[in-house]
Amino acid sequence: MAVQTVQNGTGANAAGTTVDLGPAAALSCRECGERFDLGPIFACASCFGPLEVAYDLPSGTPDELKKRIAAGPDNIWRYAPLLPVPADVASKPNINPGFTKLVKADNLARELGITGSLHVKDDSGNPTHSFKDRVVAIAVEAARAFGFTTLSCSSTGNLAGAVGAAAARAGFRSCVFIPHDLEQGKVVMAAVYGGDLVGIEGNYDDVNRFCSELIGDPLGEGWGFVNVNLRPYYGEGSKTLAYEICEQLGWRLPDQLVIPIASGSQLTKIDKGLQELIKLGLVEDKPYKIFGAQAKGCSPVSTAFKAGHDVVRPQKPDTIAKSLAIGNPADGPYVLDIARRTGGAVEDVDDEQIVDAIKLLARTEGIFAETAGGVTVGVTKKLIESGLLDPTLTTVVLNTGDGLKTLDAVAPTTGPTATIRPSLDAFRDAGLAAS
Amino acid sequence: MAVQTVQNGTGANAAGTTVDLGPAAALSCRECGERFDLGPIFACASCFGPLEVAYDLPSGTPDELKKRIAAGPDNIWRYAPLLPVPADVASKPNINPGFTKLVKADNLARELGITGSLHVKDDSGNPTHSFKDRVVAIAVEAARAFGFTTLSCSSTGNLAGAVGAAAARAGFRSCVFIPHDLEQGKVVMAAVYGGDLVGIEGNYDDVNRFCSELIGDPLGEGWGFVNVNLRPYYGEGSKTLAYEICEQLGWRLPDQLVIPIASGSQLTKIDKGLQELIKLGLVEDKPYKIFGAQAKGCSPVSTAFKAGHDVVRPQKPDTIAKSLAIGNPADGPYVLDIARRTGGAVEDVDDEQIVDAIKLLARTEGIFAETAGGVTVGVTKKLIESGLLDPTLTTVVLNTGDGLKTLDAVAPTTGPTATIRPSLDAFRDAGLAAS
Repeated sequence: MAVQTVQNGTGANAAGTTVDLGPAAALSCRECGERFDLGPIFACASCFGPLEVAYDLPSGTPDELKKRIAAGPDNIWRYAPLLPVPADVASKPNINPGFTKLVKADNLARELGITGSLHVKDDSGNPTHSFKDRVVAIAVEAARAFGFTTLSCSSTGNLAGAVGAAAARAGFRSCVFIPHDLEQGKVVMAAVYGGDLVGIEGNYDDVNRFCSELIGDPLGEGWGFVNVNLRPYYGEGSKTLAYEICEQLGWRLPDQLVIPIASGSQLTKIDKGLQELIKLGLVEDKPYKIFGAQAKGCSPVSTAFKAGHDVVRPQKPDTIAKSLAIGNPADGPYVLDIARRTGGAVEDVDDEQIVDAIKLLARTEGIFAETAGGVTVGVTKKLIESGLLDPTLTTVVLNTGDGLKTLDAVAPTTGPTATIRPSLDAFRDAGLAAS
Repeated sequence: MAVQTVQNGTGANAAGTTVDLGPAAALSCRECGERFDLGPIFACASCFGPLEVAYDLPSGTPDELKKRIAAGPDNIWRYAPLLPVPADVASKPNINPGFTKLVKADNLARELGITGSLHVKDDSGNPTHSFKDRVVAIAVEAARAFGFTTLSCSSTGNLAGAVGAAAARAGFRSCVFIPHDLEQGKVVMAAVYGGDLVGIEGNYDDVNRFCSELIGDPLGEGWGFVNVNLRPYYGEGSKTLAYEICEQLGWRLPDQLVIPIASGSQLTKIDKGLQELIKLGLVEDKPYKIFGAQAKGCSPVSTAFKAGHDVVRPQKPDTIAKSLAIGNPADGPYVLDIARRTGGAVEDVDDEQIVDAIKLLARTEGIFAETAGGVTVGVTKKLIESGLLDPTLTTVVLNTGDGLKTLDAVAPTTGPTATIRPSLDAFRDAGLAAS
């Protein structure tokens, strides 16, 4: 197990104590490869490239490792040997997300003309009902290791709830920043866990700019911003989606995955997780294709993919898929690389197609997805129609959130079949009796 | 495995084929004990008492049965040998609820002065985020066995979503009846799964009366009303809460359970489940206490308990805990029996205490509960203060639903700590920086 001394000047663990984040050996720059000691840093000191966690992966045979995983808890901590967390992580208070259902979606497959097998990885089953619980849970352990006492983030939705809930349970103070004019429902979800919630007079960009200032100021001393100074650790949480999908398929790689793109981090980390499983011999080394899914109203990556560009040009988002509405996705270029390397693609669907896809998934599989789930299901349909996705193979589609959080998307077109007086005659006239 | 012929005249399986509901041997009257063949009937032909499922419980040693359960899926079907479902139930399309988290609630225990161990059984992790998925999943299998093609219910909330989702996935048509003036959010949750949703011009009582008429009419031919003509099977789903709690405690009985009361069915079935586990030798035969929890605005059972009555006098509900607002609870007298037999109690809390308890659970454990969860947590607090619940023992508190479905309860008192301009000065003035 790697134990590293925190670099001087990182602002954490000033006492110079050691940091135990299990198999995490160092941070390495994704651009130039330079390595840094584990610490709350996120950009390469040489080239400003993003940092990611490098591991000493566990030794032992694949069967031994599978047995070790199977003996673990029914949450992401079963994969502790592959994550930047201490070995005893499961005994610490945390929100314990993961091991959500991989639903075999035979009804949906039939409607889409898929003759292979189709599975929906349904992350609405997480504690606060989105995949954000995975990444926040890892950030919590990094914050603990670095001696932070406050967890923070800027958010307009899922992340605020995930941070609030995890901080409450793990014994951190939380202070979350939101635009001041959010809908009341979202404010309630962010505030109910009892941490501090600060409305910022401005839009989401203003909130982000303010948070960047705060990180560099003594006022933010001791604060872990889960998706800024803890981002290299936070991002690793998405690897657990890859691990779970393969384990739930009986330690087999799917042939095709359809993954939503916001910043693009989730897609790149799922690819990283699949590569690790191949390297460790937990799954067969065979090709798989990764497809990225965007909303047309915020489709910088799919636009670049279709144009054959390596650079992603920012867009101003205008879509009902708010949780994917990042106009300048940090990991966009890496997503393009992965889609091209694996033989996948990046596609987008418009708001009407998103709503149709949410309803399609609900009426075929009983899963009520967030708009992001409508994006992946809608894109899957489109990819089959265009011939890019092979309907005879094994495909996994991600639903990363819960429809209860985006009721507005379907409300205008979802209502009663009929409204009648309470009488059998009225019911007969409505034509709804059994045929 | 018991295979029974459906009674003539029950309206299902008119062809006289046999019904395989696994270990379910018969229906028996809870009042007079008379037995009936398995069928879609719910009241005793002799005394009109409620019918419940009688079992041929599995033979074999406790260790063999534990091993068989552990080898099952991570949902309620792992307990198929103890439920009215066929042995191959896990291979049929269903919503597969259960095996939700039993959260060790150390932070909440500390706040409540509990020195023993406190656990929250968090059923917000079910597919449609309430315990109703458990009972509906069993009703689906009964409906399949009896040849029904339409699933139905009257509902104002959780049940509508559970029926809609399960019917969609299991391949049934659904037709759910609601009062015509429900809030739009609840209508969306009921309608999104694509079944028929019928608004009835009237209140919830009118809806129920209409459904009773429909069951007796040819218009309702082939319809399974999950909580009426399938009620004996439906109710058994709540036993799985007992099984899971004990298995998750390492096959040990808790000393005390705090359970919400709507109709009272859930509480009586949890007791039935615990008794079965004792009988089968899966847990030690030792005393446990069952506490019932109501909202003061709908507290017919706690009122009767405190007055020492055996009869429950109906009340007109007026509480924010809508999912518990049954003024004339069918199983009220049985709840009184169980609370008295086990040495428990029935207590209630007012709306303000419910809201406080929702927030207490959220800020200590990161669990955002429905109002029903506020009722059980609030009652637990009150029972400790009054000395009826022993804080040195092992206690399990149920959260049966999700806070996202009852945002209105906490919205008026849950908001930002501060609203500021996006500047460090403004933030400093707000006094929220680290101390």
